[in-house]
Amino acid sequence: MELEPPADPQNDPVTDLPHDPGKDRENDAGDAGPGGPAASPEAVTELLGVIGYAELTAALRLAADALTAPALDVRVWMGRASCTEFEHFERIVTRLRETGHDPETVLSPFAGPVDAFHERTRPRDWLEGLVKAYVGDGIARDFYREIARRVDAPSRELIESVLHVDAQDEFVVRSVTEAIEADPTVAGRLALLARRLVGEAIAQAQYVALEREALIDLLVGGQGDLGDLGRMFTRLIDLHGERMARLGLTP
Amino acid sequence: MELEPPADPQNDPVTDLPHDPGKDRENDAGDAGPGGPAASPEAVTELLGVIGYAELTAALRLAADALTAPALDVRVWMGRASCTEFEHFERIVTRLRETGHDPETVLSPFAGPVDAFHERTRPRDWLEGLVKAYVGDGIARDFYREIARRVDAPSRELIESVLHVDAQDEFVVRSVTEAIEADPTVAGRLALLARRLVGEAIAQAQYVALEREALIDLLVGGQGDLGDLGRMFTRLIDLHGERMARLGLTP
Repeated sequence: MELEPPADPQNDPVTDLPHDPGKDRENDAGDAGPGGPAASPEAVTELLGVIGYAELTAALRLAADALTAPALDVRVWMGRASCTEFEHFERIVTRLRETGHDPETVLSPFAGPVDAFHERTRPRDWLEGLVKAYVGDGIARDFYREIARRVDAPSRELIESVLHVDAQDEFVVRSVTEAIEADPTVAGRLALLARRLVGEAIAQAQYVALEREALIDLLVGGQGDLGDLGRMFTRLIDLHGERMARLGLTP
Repeated sequence: MELEPPADPQNDPVTDLPHDPGKDRENDAGDAGPGGPAASPEAVTELLGVIGYAELTAALRLAADALTAPALDVRVWMGRASCTEFEHFERIVTRLRETGHDPETVLSPFAGPVDAFHERTRPRDWLEGLVKAYVGDGIARDFYREIARRVDAPSRELIESVLHVDAQDEFVVRSVTEAIEADPTVAGRLALLARRLVGEAIAQAQYVALEREALIDLLVGGQGDLGDLGRMFTRLIDLHGERMARLGLTP
């Protein structure tokens, strides 16, 4: 791909995470977080691939959704969020190159499920676009953050940095709250969209993982413990409920 | 609008432009270029308004067009170009704020003609999207650069900086050339689109200017010399022809 390298992501060591005592602290690349043994390099590459393709697609879709917003400030917020996602995408591409991978080869296999997710959760107007950006991006962040515990430190730091919560989320909360105040009936349709977002996200994530043994190992901590997976989904759904409450919507 | 100020644009004085001897060199804000007397502050604000709205819209449209490109490298190029345009938009917003204007008030009047231009030149596929980005952006840059000669130095420097030619234009030339080699019949339809782009750009520019006395004064150098305007159009069409030749298209 024709990509100029963006600025390097931060590479400060993460010092506030509990440490697996069996690991050598100096060995940054093998320093797994608290979620179990370090993931295989293959799984990390696939994880960066799916996040990268998802960020690129989210960036372009968000900009396209912005065109449907009549208010200039909404268009501007969505345009800025789009460029933030694009910048995250470029950082992932840089990391893939640094680890000797061709980004196009790594990203392309995830086009099917990511595009399917977006086709099935297409916003009908700018308000649905805002809720999709807020709720969908929130679920994705929580999910990747859970998984990132198990990957090597440089990849984990990159993933955490591209999941940085945008301070401008306050804008979404205010816009959605105002829209519901102006017309209380929109709350039902927005809640419905949010439920579809969760359902499709889980469906496509399963589809992605089930076809890839390395990613399944990453999800279940390399020990085949499906109880872990259930507890993770419980945490994700709790966090989703908190986000919905902030928007004034029923989860 | 909810806009965080981006980094300041370069503010180096432009030293290589001929100087109007009647002007005080120290008076940066009134230092007009060679095209005639300095434009009125009102005209400069309107000019920044139309460029700002055009950059925002071009950014979002380009990202939306990118979604139609099957090749990942094309999507990435268009996404990056989109974010560059968005960053230009944010710099114009910053400048409007600095000069005491509400960006939304200044930009909104230009929504009609800019949106109409895009509706009438909607690309039917990613290849037309690339040509539109290359040719349309090229015409816009040349046009604004002509006008910018007549505005105060800080505004002129801002306008020149947001019109910076992207080194990645080479990517468009290569993509279009390869597409024509693969199927020579596409050259005709791309040339047709380019002609429509020029026609619509001129039509909408006239519409914008004719309704705004300050902008008309800016266009004709404050002296009502329509001959100047004709010579300017000749230069613009020559430059457009050179761009078309680079793409291998008949102007």
